[in-house]
Amino acid sequence: MLGIDVGGTKIAIGVSGTDGPEIAAKVRLETGENPLATALHAARGLDRAPAAVGFSTTGVLHEGRVLLAPNVPGWNGLELPRLLREEYGTIPVAIGNDVKAAAAAELRWGALHGVSTAVYLNLGTGLAAALVVGGQVVDGAHGAAGEIGYLLAEPGEPAFADGHAPLEERVSGRALVAHGSALLGRTVTAGALFGLPEGAVLVDEALRTLAIAVANLCVALDPEVVVVGGGMMAEAARILPPLAREVRRVVPFPPEVRAARFTDDAPLLGALALAHALT
Amino acid sequence: MLGIDVGGTKIAIGVSGTDGPEIAAKVRLETGENPLATALHAARGLDRAPAAVGFSTTGVLHEGRVLLAPNVPGWNGLELPRLLREEYGTIPVAIGNDVKAAAAAELRWGALHGVSTAVYLNLGTGLAAALVVGGQVVDGAHGAAGEIGYLLAEPGEPAFADGHAPLEERVSGRALVAHGSALLGRTVTAGALFGLPEGAVLVDEALRTLAIAVANLCVALDPEVVVVGGGMMAEAARILPPLAREVRRVVPFPPEVRAARFTDDAPLLGALALAHALT
Repeated sequence: MLGIDVGGTKIAIGVSGTDGPEIAAKVRLETGENPLATALHAARGLDRAPAAVGFSTTGVLHEGRVLLAPNVPGWNGLELPRLLREEYGTIPVAIGNDVKAAAAAELRWGALHGVSTAVYLNLGTGLAAALVVGGQVVDGAHGAAGEIGYLLAEPGEPAFADGHAPLEERVSGRALVAHGSALLGRTVTAGALFGLPEGAVLVDEALRTLAIAVANLCVALDPEVVVVGGGMMAEAARILPPLAREVRRVVPFPPEVRAARFTDDAPLLGALALAHALT
Repeated sequence: MLGIDVGGTKIAIGVSGTDGPEIAAKVRLETGENPLATALHAARGLDRAPAAVGFSTTGVLHEGRVLLAPNVPGWNGLELPRLLREEYGTIPVAIGNDVKAAAAAELRWGALHGVSTAVYLNLGTGLAAALVVGGQVVDGAHGAAGEIGYLLAEPGEPAFADGHAPLEERVSGRALVAHGSALLGRTVTAGALFGLPEGAVLVDEALRTLAIAVANLCVALDPEVVVVGGGMMAEAARILPPLAREVRRVVPFPPEVRAARFTDDAPLLGALALAHALT
């Protein structure tokens, strides 16, 4: 199996043999200017004749094109299915959104194994989720289910039609960097902000806003469990308790809130899970 | 087929022959003090040996009991599946939440026919929704998916754990009656409030709050369509445009917002749809 993940800053490629979350060989690259060519070239070096290929990336796939993917150069509008077909010919290929793919990896091998109804939450540079119903990730009518970065957090605030992703602009690694750097007058990483006393107000406010959105998502879906992954989960001890508290306060049947099994390699494992599901 | 709907104020019982939304014979009763005995007695008068029975009611069914149903006397904790088994013996019986059942009727015969991903919104005395994924109504882990009356509309407001249903207390027939009567110093119906100039601020504010919640639900689920039913849809011309406007502003792939096919008889038709699905 060959898995490829193209993200906003990194490309990850891995191969696996048996049906499990172990990656036998792996390559990591910068996304750079021509990410698809870069990824396919490196993938040839790892496995020239995979049994199946899983490809995960940001954005949504709709009618044969990538949409809502502003962070990867040349990605918006890219005819990814056609281009992968050109590369792989008759080898089975599955393409998925990276967060939905990460949820598929949790369903297949991780914290969502055996779960029917769930929310998978990805707290990374961006903010997105995957809804799970009947043990399957929900695509939505246009592949955009779970794109919770577009949720309104306040009445009347600028929204998708105005070029904004309201919740993501409040709660995400990128948002914490932007707001933290503005507050402190120097560039800080999201991780550093969690460690700074001056960052506490910003972090707490973002977590409060996130908790309301997650609790409301749980009211709507009635999941058994909320699984949280993504790079910000390095701060799990700070993130999970306020989420769980608001979920218990708001949701009639509060789901458990717990950490994902996979963090750094989640979208790559997701790509491999998509590939395994093909065979 | 026999359909029974037990609501907070009314019981409706109907029989149908062919697989369609026509009700051959129908009885309507007040809910009264002993609604199950009342309903079953009247049902015997309509059809003593139905091929199948569908039963819809408020609240959610979880582990053999009715929960979250404060508006029907004696309903909370009622072992409805066992009691209906006692009445109907080997005749197949399906029990469902009334709003989810109404969505099932729209899927089978109405505005959701052939639709895969959708939101069905019920604006009645209370407020609830049904989510549709893969052409099926989503139950959730405890039967409570779509119970959007419990959504938070504002940070920190009293929530389920405090005995409240925050969104329903802002946006529902019951809420409009309560807030309208308080404002005007006399009892008004929700319908009357829509017609009164003094009611406009209240109605507009409720619709604004509802529109945000519906738009956010569409961001999360990415439905093809939002179908709106329930008694308040007598005011469809006032209700649908602001909903559609906010959905277009907020949702990356805005679904169509349209009226349900069925209104008054929706939960009864829902019960009949549940019965038809059994055979």
